[in-house]
Amino acid sequence: MKQINQLAPQDEFIGFFLLRELTVKQTNGNPPKDYFDIVLCDSTGQLSAKYWDVSPSDKETFFPMGLVKVQGMAHLYREKLQIKITKMRLAADSDGVSLTDFIRSAPIRPVDLVFAIKQAMNAIQDGEIRKVVAYCVQKVEEKLMHYPAAKTHHHAYFAGLAYHMTRMLEIGDFLCKQRPFLNPDLIRAGIILHDIAKPEEMTAELGIVSDYSLKGKLLGHIAMAANWITEAAIMENIDLDSPKIIALQHLVLSHHNLGEWGSPVQPQTAEAVALHQIDTLDAKLQMVEDALDTTPESEEWTPFIRGLENKPIYRMKLEP
Amino acid sequence: MKQINQLAPQDEFIGFFLLRELTVKQTNGNPPKDYFDIVLCDSTGQLSAKYWDVSPSDKETFFPMGLVKVQGMAHLYREKLQIKITKMRLAADSDGVSLTDFIRSAPIRPVDLVFAIKQAMNAIQDGEIRKVVAYCVQKVEEKLMHYPAAKTHHHAYFAGLAYHMTRMLEIGDFLCKQRPFLNPDLIRAGIILHDIAKPEEMTAELGIVSDYSLKGKLLGHIAMAANWITEAAIMENIDLDSPKIIALQHLVLSHHNLGEWGSPVQPQTAEAVALHQIDTLDAKLQMVEDALDTTPESEEWTPFIRGLENKPIYRMKLEP
Amino acid sequence: MKQINQLAPQDEFIGFFLLRELTVKQTNGNPPKDYFDIVLCDSTGQLSAKYWDVSPSDKETFFPMGLVKVQGMAHLYREKLQIKITKMRLAADSDGVSLTDFIRSAPIRPVDLVFAIKQAMNAIQDGEIRKVVAYCVQKVEEKLMHYPAAKTHHHAYFAGLAYHMTRMLEIGDFLCKQRPFLNPDLIRAGIILHDIAKPEEMTAELGIVSDYSLKGKLLGHIAMAANWITEAAIMENIDLDSPKIIALQHLVLSHHNLGEWGSPVQPQTAEAVALHQIDTLDAKLQMVEDALDTTPESEEWTPFIRGLENKPIYRMKLEP
Amino acid sequence: MKQINQLAPQDEFIGFFLLRELTVKQTNGNPPKDYFDIVLCDSTGQLSAKYWDVSPSDKETFFPMGLVKVQGMAHLYREKLQIKITKMRLAADSDGVSLTDFIRSAPIRPVDLVFAIKQAMNAIQDGEIRKVVAYCVQKVEEKLMHYPAAKTHHHAYFAGLAYHMTRMLEIGDFLCKQRPFLNPDLIRAGIILHDIAKPEEMTAELGIVSDYSLKGKLLGHIAMAANWITEAAIMENIDLDSPKIIALQHLVLSHHNLGEWGSPVQPQTAEAVALHQIDTLDAKLQMVEDALDTTPESEEWTPFIRGLENKPIYRMKLEP
Amino acid sequence: MKQINQLAPQDEFIGFFLLRELTVKQTNGNPPKDYFDIVLCDSTGQLSAKYWDVSPSDKETFFPMGLVKVQGMAHLYREKLQIKITKMRLAADSDGVSLTDFIRSAPIRPVDLVFAIKQAMNAIQDGEIRKVVAYCVQKVEEKLMHYPAAKTHHHAYFAGLAYHMTRMLEIGDFLCKQRPFLNPDLIRAGIILHDIAKPEEMTAELGIVSDYSLKGKLLGHIAMAANWITEAAIMENIDLDSPKIIALQHLVLSHHNLGEWGSPVQPQTAEAVALHQIDTLDAKLQMVEDALDTTPESEEWTPFIRGLENKPIYRMKLEP
Amino acid sequence: MKQINQLAPQDEFIGFFLLRELTVKQTNGNPPKDYFDIVLCDSTGQLSAKYWDVSPSDKETFFPMGLVKVQGMAHLYREKLQIKITKMRLAADSDGVSLTDFIRSAPIRPVDLVFAIKQAMNAIQDGEIRKVVAYCVQKVEEKLMHYPAAKTHHHAYFAGLAYHMTRMLEIGDFLCKQRPFLNPDLIRAGIILHDIAKPEEMTAELGIVSDYSLKGKLLGHIAMAANWITEAAIMENIDLDSPKIIALQHLVLSHHNLGEWGSPVQPQTAEAVALHQIDTLDAKLQMVEDALDTTPESEEWTPFIRGLENKPIYRMKLEP
Repeated sequence: MKQINQLAPQDEFIGFFLLRELTVKQTNGNPPKDYFDIVLCDSTGQLSAKYWDVSPSDKETFFPMGLVKVQGMAHLYREKLQIKITKMRLAADSDGVSLTDFIRSAPIRPVDLVFAIKQAMNAIQDGEIRKVVAYCVQKVEEKLMHYPAAKTHHHAYFAGLAYHMTRMLEIGDFLCKQRPFLNPDLIRAGIILHDIAKPEEMTAELGIVSDYSLKGKLLGHIAMAANWITEAAIMENIDLDSPKIIALQHLVLSHHNLGEWGSPVQPQTAEAVALHQIDTLDAKLQMVEDALDTTPESEEWTPFIRGLENKPIYRMKLEP
Repeated sequence: MKQINQLAPQDEFIGFFLLRELTVKQTNGNPPKDYFDIVLCDSTGQLSAKYWDVSPSDKETFFPMGLVKVQGMAHLYREKLQIKITKMRLAADSDGVSLTDFIRSAPIRPVDLVFAIKQAMNAIQDGEIRKVVAYCVQKVEEKLMHYPAAKTHHHAYFAGLAYHMTRMLEIGDFLCKQRPFLNPDLIRAGIILHDIAKPEEMTAELGIVSDYSLKGKLLGHIAMAANWITEAAIMENIDLDSPKIIALQHLVLSHHNLGEWGSPVQPQTAEAVALHQIDTLDAKLQMVEDALDTTPESEEWTPFIRGLENKPIYRMKLEP
Repeated sequence: MKQINQLAPQDEFIGFFLLRELTVKQTNGNPPKDYFDIVLCDSTGQLSAKYWDVSPSDKETFFPMGLVKVQGMAHLYREKLQIKITKMRLAADSDGVSLTDFIRSAPIRPVDLVFAIKQAMNAIQDGEIRKVVAYCVQKVEEKLMHYPAAKTHHHAYFAGLAYHMTRMLEIGDFLCKQRPFLNPDLIRAGIILHDIAKPEEMTAELGIVSDYSLKGKLLGHIAMAANWITEAAIMENIDLDSPKIIALQHLVLSHHNLGEWGSPVQPQTAEAVALHQIDTLDAKLQMVEDALDTTPESEEWTPFIRGLENKPIYRMKLEP
Repeated sequence: MKQINQLAPQDEFIGFFLLRELTVKQTNGNPPKDYFDIVLCDSTGQLSAKYWDVSPSDKETFFPMGLVKVQGMAHLYREKLQIKITKMRLAADSDGVSLTDFIRSAPIRPVDLVFAIKQAMNAIQDGEIRKVVAYCVQKVEEKLMHYPAAKTHHHAYFAGLAYHMTRMLEIGDFLCKQRPFLNPDLIRAGIILHDIAKPEEMTAELGIVSDYSLKGKLLGHIAMAANWITEAAIMENIDLDSPKIIALQHLVLSHHNLGEWGSPVQPQTAEAVALHQIDTLDAKLQMVEDALDTTPESEEWTPFIRGLENKPIYRMKLEP
Repeated sequence: MKQINQLAPQDEFIGFFLLRELTVKQTNGNPPKDYFDIVLCDSTGQLSAKYWDVSPSDKETFFPMGLVKVQGMAHLYREKLQIKITKMRLAADSDGVSLTDFIRSAPIRPVDLVFAIKQAMNAIQDGEIRKVVAYCVQKVEEKLMHYPAAKTHHHAYFAGLAYHMTRMLEIGDFLCKQRPFLNPDLIRAGIILHDIAKPEEMTAELGIVSDYSLKGKLLGHIAMAANWITEAAIMENIDLDSPKIIALQHLVLSHHNLGEWGSPVQPQTAEAVALHQIDTLDAKLQMVEDALDTTPESEEWTPFIRGLENKPIYRMKLEP
Repeated sequence: MKQINQLAPQDEFIGFFLLRELTVKQTNGNPPKDYFDIVLCDSTGQLSAKYWDVSPSDKETFFPMGLVKVQGMAHLYREKLQIKITKMRLAADSDGVSLTDFIRSAPIRPVDLVFAIKQAMNAIQDGEIRKVVAYCVQKVEEKLMHYPAAKTHHHAYFAGLAYHMTRMLEIGDFLCKQRPFLNPDLIRAGIILHDIAKPEEMTAELGIVSDYSLKGKLLGHIAMAANWITEAAIMENIDLDSPKIIALQHLVLSHHNLGEWGSPVQPQTAEAVALHQIDTLDAKLQMVEDALDTTPESEEWTPFIRGLENKPIYRMKLEP
C-alpha cells in the first residue's frame, strides 16, 4: 500500500487515509451538482482530491477528521499531483487501522516526551519552584501527550508542544553547563512553563488546531500561564511576593521578548534572556527541519516560511 | 508671601518651600567648594535654586523632600528665572506649615475622589464583579488617597490616580447613557481596575514617583492587576473560567490597546474598546490642561509634551 | 414578508430587495452560459444570490442599485446562507416600495440630524466663526441629508456623516462642561468642519460610496476643507491671518493626528487634541456597535474589523 | 586679515566678525563672574569664543547678530580650535563693513536668482497657471531675495531658498527635454510653488532662521501654499474646480511624498512624482556639497548629516 | 491586422501573437473537459484569452513563449476585454514573423543602447576604473542586449536594463556639469556597475524574467557585483585596498540606500549619494511613463503602482 | 594593592593603572587652569578621576593608553565613586608591570582560543571549504590573538572575537549532534568566517576599538568577508560558481538576518538560519554575563543594555 509521498501520476491505488478537510462544492452546470473537495493525508504528507457525483447519503456519511478507505487515481492538475477518488467508504473497526497512524507526529513517542519533561521537572532543586511547575503541568498533563505547539507556526503536529519542550530542555542543560552563571532551576522551570497554557489557549485534535478558546483569544497563553502561577502559589502556600514567584512570572511574561510579539514586559533577568533565545533557536530550526521534511525530495526549495522572514529554504547539497 | 508663579526678577523674598531635589555639586575652583543645586517647589510650580558656601553641617541637615524656610532673591539666568538662596533653615513644627500645602495636587480632595470611586463601585449591579473590584480596591485603598497616575506621563501629582479614575467614571457614565449597548458594570469595573496595580508598581511620596518596584519592573501593572483578579476570584469563590472573570481580565490586559504599548492582547469586547478610548481621552486632555496650568500665563507655548506626539500646545486666545 | 436577517435554510419566499451588486458571470460549460452573481440587501442586512439562465433581455433590464421583486429559496452553501432566485422582476411604481426602505441608515432621521447640526452651529457665540461654519455647511447641505462618513471604515450608511457629527457634538458638549478650559465655539466648529468636505471627496448614492472624486484623490478631504475655510474667509471678509481662521484651519488639518493618517500637522491647541479624541472615540465605538448589529445574534464573534487593530469583537453576555 | 577657515592655533589676530550667538554665563567661583560664551562667524565658517571679565556695560552693548571688531588669539581646546577674545568693540559705520559680508550665502547673487525664477515663471505657457504662480511669488518676492530654504536641513543660508528653486528649475528643464511626456508648465509651476510659503512659515534674518511663525507651526508651509493657490484663483477669477488648480494644489500637497514627511496626499500625477524626485535630488546633493565646503580641507570626513541617513560623507580623492 | 490595443468588443480578427502564458484548466462539468487559459501579447499590450475544446495533441503543441496564429473574437467579460479563440496554430517559418516583434521593448535599439554604454565607459579617464568597468561589462555583454532591469518593478522589458543605464548616464552627465564637485569617472562607473550583475541574478527571455538564479537568491545582485569588482581587480592587477576599488565597491554596495532595501552600507561619498538619487529618479519616472503608456488612452487612471507608494497615476490633461 | 572594584569611599591608595582616557579641561576661574579628566582602569573595572594643577610638562607626559603609578583618594561624587589623584608618574620598565594586566580580557588565554578555532577549522571534512576558511583565517591570524568582537556591543575586550568564535563553535557542535540535518562543515565554516573581517573593519589596541577603518565604514565587515571568499576561491582555484562557494558567501552575507541589521540577503539555508541563531544566542548571553560581571556586586541592576531591548538586567538571587 503506497504512502502519499510515494504516489506518482497515473498511479491507481487503494488505501486508507485521514479525511483532513472536506468541503461540499457545486459544479457550475445547470442544475449544479454537488462534489467533494477533499484533503487526504497520512503521516507522510497530504494531497488534494476530488470526489464527483456525491449522493445525499454521502453528505451524511463523510466529515472532516474521519478515517476512510479510498480507491482512486493520481494525476497532474496544474503541475501538482491530485487524486480523483472513484470509490470511498468509512473505515470500520475490522479494518484494524488507527487515526494516529495517519497524522504527522513528533519523532519521539509522547510518553517518552512527557517522561523527559517530568524528569526535568523533578530535577529542579528548589522545592517551591518545583511545586509551582508541577501544579501547572498537572493542569494539562493529558493534553501534553498530543497537543501541537501552534496552529501552523512551528511544531504544528501531534505532541509537538512536548517535543518543543524536550528539545529546549536539552539546549537549556547544555547552556547551563557552558555558562554557570545561569540558574538551572529557573531555566528548567521557564522552559516547562513558558507555553504551558497553550493547550487551554487552543482547541486541537490529533495535533491539528481547529480554533482558539475564548480565554485564548481574550487573555492569551502568556497571561493565562501567569495567572496559573498565581493560582499555584496560593494553592501551595507560597508567598506571592517572593522573588521565586516574581522570577517565574517574569520568565513567562517576557518570553516573547517584545511587546509587539505579545510580551507585556521585556526580559530583565539572565534566565529570561536565555529562555527567549532558546525558544527562538528551537522554533526556527524546527521550522527549517519540518519544511525540508515535508517538501518532496525532488524539490530544491521549500515553500515560503512566515517565521523565517517569509523566505523559502534551499536544500543545499554539497558534493564530497 | 509670594508664591513661585508670582516671583519676578530682582524680587527679594522670604518663604516656605518644599526642597524637591537637592544635589551636592562642586565648583571648578581649586580646591573645589561644595554648593547645593536645588529645586524648590510650592503648589504653583517649581524653580531652580543655588545655595553657595555649603557647610559640612548643611550636608547633614538638608535632604530632598524636606520643608525649608528660605531667604533669597530671584534673578534671570540664561533667560530663565532662578533663585539665589542667601539663608535657609528647616521648617519647624512651630512654623505651622504642612508638606501637603507645597505640592501639586488634584483639584478635588482625595477623600472626595475615593468616595466617588467607591460610590461607582457600589453602583455595580453584578455581585461577583463588585466583589472582585472591592477586593482589588481594598489592596491599595490607602495609597489611592495620594498616589499619582504616573511618574511624568499624565496626572503626575498628589491623588492623580484617583482623579484620573473619577473623571473617567464621569465619561463612562455619559457614554453608557449615549450608547446603551455598553454594559455599565463592565465599564465601571474596567475603569476602576485598569490602573489599580499602579500603586504597587511605583514608589511614590507626596504624589512624586521616585522609582518602580521590582514587581513593577519585572511584571508591570497590567499583569499584576490580572493576577489580582485571579487572586480575588479564588478568595471570593468565583469560577476562574466564568465569563465575568474573563471579561474583567480582558479589560485590564487590553487597555493599552497595542502590544508595543504593553497590552498582550488587543480589545475584543465593546467595553474593552470603550475603556481604552476613555483612558486615552482623559489622559490626553489632562496632559493639555496640566501643561497649560503649569506654564506661566505670559508664555504662549507650553513645553513639548511627549504624550502628545511630542508637540507643545499653543494657548489659543480668541478675541470676542 | 420576511426580512433578510430572518431567512433560514430551505425558506421559500417572495419579497422586494435592493440589487446592491450584480455581476454577469459564465458557467464553465461549453458553450458557457451567462448567470448573475448578485448581492441582495434590505435594511437588515445582505445576502449573496444566484440567478441562473439569464436571458439577453435580463442583461438589459437589471442593474446595480435597482429595486426588484424576487421569488427564491434560501439554502446553505459552504456553510453560509445563499439565495437561489427563481423569478425576478423590476419593482414598479405601483408596488409602492421605496429605495430608502431597503438600505442601512442612521437610527435617527436625516432631517433631525441636520437640524441638530444647525442648532449647534447657531450656538456658536463668535460671529465670524459661525459665518465660516455656515459657509461650509451650505456647500454640502443637501448631501448632509444622506452621505455616509466613509466607504467602509465607519458610519458607512445613509446619513452616516450627519449621524457621526451629531454624536460627536453630544460628546463635545459633555466635555466642555466637564473641562471648562475648552472653548465650546472651537469644539463645535471643529466637529462640524472636520469632515465637511467628505461629500465632495466621495461619490455616494443611498449611503453607499461608489468612488472618490478627482479632488478627493488628488487633494483629500482635509486639504479641501482647509481651502474652503480660506474661501469662506475671503467671501465673508474675515482676515486670513486672524487667530480665528488659523485656529479653524488647524482643527481641520490636524484632526487625523498623525502624518501617516493624513494630517500634515499635529494637534497643538487644546481643542485640536480634543477634536481628534472625540472623533476617534465616536468612530471606534460606532464600529463596534455596527459590527454587533450586523452580525447575526446567533454568532458570538463579529468579522475582523480593520479599524479595531483588525480584531473581531466578542459579544460578551454576562448572566445576572 | 585672516578668515576663520585660515586660523591656526596660537595665531593672534584682529578682525571683523558677526556675533552669531552670545550667551552670558557665570564662572563657578564664589562669587561667580559673568563671561560671554560666543559664536563668531564670517562667510567661511564659524568658531566658538570666550570673552572673560565682562563688564556691566558690555552686557548692554553686545547682542547676537551684531557686527564686532575683535582682537584675540586662537588656541586648541579639547582638540578643537577656539578663540580667546582680548578686546572687542562694536563695528562703526566708519569701519566700512557690512553684515552681508559675514554670512554664508548662496554662490549666486540673489538678484540673479530671483531673475532666473521670474524668467522661468514667464516661460509658463498657460496664462492661468502663470497668474497663480505670479500671485504667490509676489506675496514673498522681497523675502525671496534673502530667505534660506530651511533652518538647518538644507540650503540653510542667505538666499538659499531662491538658490534651491533655481537649481531645481535647471534640473526640471533637463528632464522635460529628456522625457517629453512631462508638462513643462506644471514642472516649472510646481518647482516655484512647492516651498513658496516657507518665508511665511519661518522668521529669518540674514539667512538664519530664528523661529517658526504661528501659521508655520499650526498650518505648515504645505497647507499655507495650498491656501494661497485657492486665494490666487479667487482673486484671478479662475475656476476653483478646474483641472489646473487641482493639478497645482496636488503638486504642492504631495511634494513631501509621504504622510510622515508632511504630505497629506501622495504624488499621483507624472509631474508630482517628478517634482518630489527633483526636490530630493537637489536637496541631498546640496547637503553633500555644503557639508564638504564647510568641513576644513584637512578633514576627511564631514560631520554626521541627518538628511543623509545620519551618515557623514567621506572626501574621496582618487589619484590620477 | 489589428494590434491588441486597437481591438474592440465584437471584433473578429485573424493575427499573430505571442503566447505569453498558457495554463491547462478543466471545466467543472462531469466529466470535466480541458481548456486553455491563455495570455496573448504583442508589442502594444496583452489580453486574456480562452481556447475551449482542447485536444490531446493541442496539449503537445502549444507552450508558453511560442508564436501562434489565432482566429478569434473579442468580447467583454466582467467589464474587461477578452478573446475567444476559435482557431489556433503555431507560426511557421514561412509566416515571416519574429518573436521580437511581439514583445514590449525599450524605445531605442539595443545595439544603440550598448554602444552608448560603451561610449560612456570609454569616456572614463582613469585607466584602472575603466578596466574594472570593462571587465564586468564583458561578463554580461551579450545579455545587456536584451535583459530587463527587473521582473516587474521597473524597465521590465526587452533591453530595459541597458535603457535604464543609458538614461541614467544622460542624467549623470547633466549633474556633473551642474555640480563640478562630482567626479564624472565615478558617476559613470557607478551607473554602469550598479545593476551589472542583474543578468546573472535573474533568468530572462525576450525581456521577461521567469525566475531568479541560485546566486541571485542566495547572494543578490549587489553582493555579486561587489565580488566581480574584487575579481576584476585581481585579474587586472589592481590593489584591492586602493581608494579606487573601495570607491567602486562602495557605489555598488550602497546604491539601494537603506538596509531594508538591500544595501549593507549607506552612501557616504558624494558620488554614492548622487548614484542613489539618479537611480531612483530614473526608475520612478520610468514607472510613471510605462504605466501611462500601457494603460489604454481611454482610461484616466493607471493601475496601482507598487514602487510609487502603491498609488495609481492620473493622466492629467490641461486644456490650452 | 587594591583593585578598582574593591575601592571604597575615603580609601587612600597607591597603585598602577591604565590611563584609558585623558582629556585636558579648564576650570572656569579667571584665568582658567588646566586639569585632567581621566578614566583609570584595571582588569576589574574602571573609574573617573581628576588630576588638578596640571603642569605644562604633564601635558607632554601623559597620554591615553599609558600605564601610570597613581597616589590618590577615592570619594563619592554625585553618588558615584571617583578618584582624586594627588601624585602620578609614568610606569617604568623597572616597575615590572605589563599593559595586558590592566585590561579586561576573555576568560581563556588567546593562544588557547586560537588553537580551538584552528582545531575546528581542521575538523572541516571538505577540503575546499577548509582551504577557503584557512585562507581567510591566515589574513587576520595575528589580530585574532587580541581583537575584540565589537566596539561596545558585545565581547568588547581583549581577544573577545576569538572567544565569541570559540563559544559559538561549542554551541554549533552541540546543535549538529542534536539535529543531524545540519551540515557540520558549513556550521563550522560559517562560525569562523562570519566575523572574520572585523579585525580589518576596526582599529583596536588592547581590546579597545578606537575607530573604524575606511573599508570598514564604506564596505562593512560583511561585504569584506564575502570579497575575501571570492579572493580565496580564485587563489585556491575553486570554481566561483560552485555550491560550496555560494553556500559560504550566503552564510556570511545573511548572518545579520535582516536588511536593517546589515545583511543584504536573508538566511535561506538550514545552516544560515542556524548561524544567525547561534550568533545571537552567544552575543546576548555574553552581554548579560559581562554586564553582571562589571556591575558591582552590591548593585541589583546593571546599566541599560542597548542590545537587550535597552533594558537593564536584574541580579536575581533566590534563597535556597
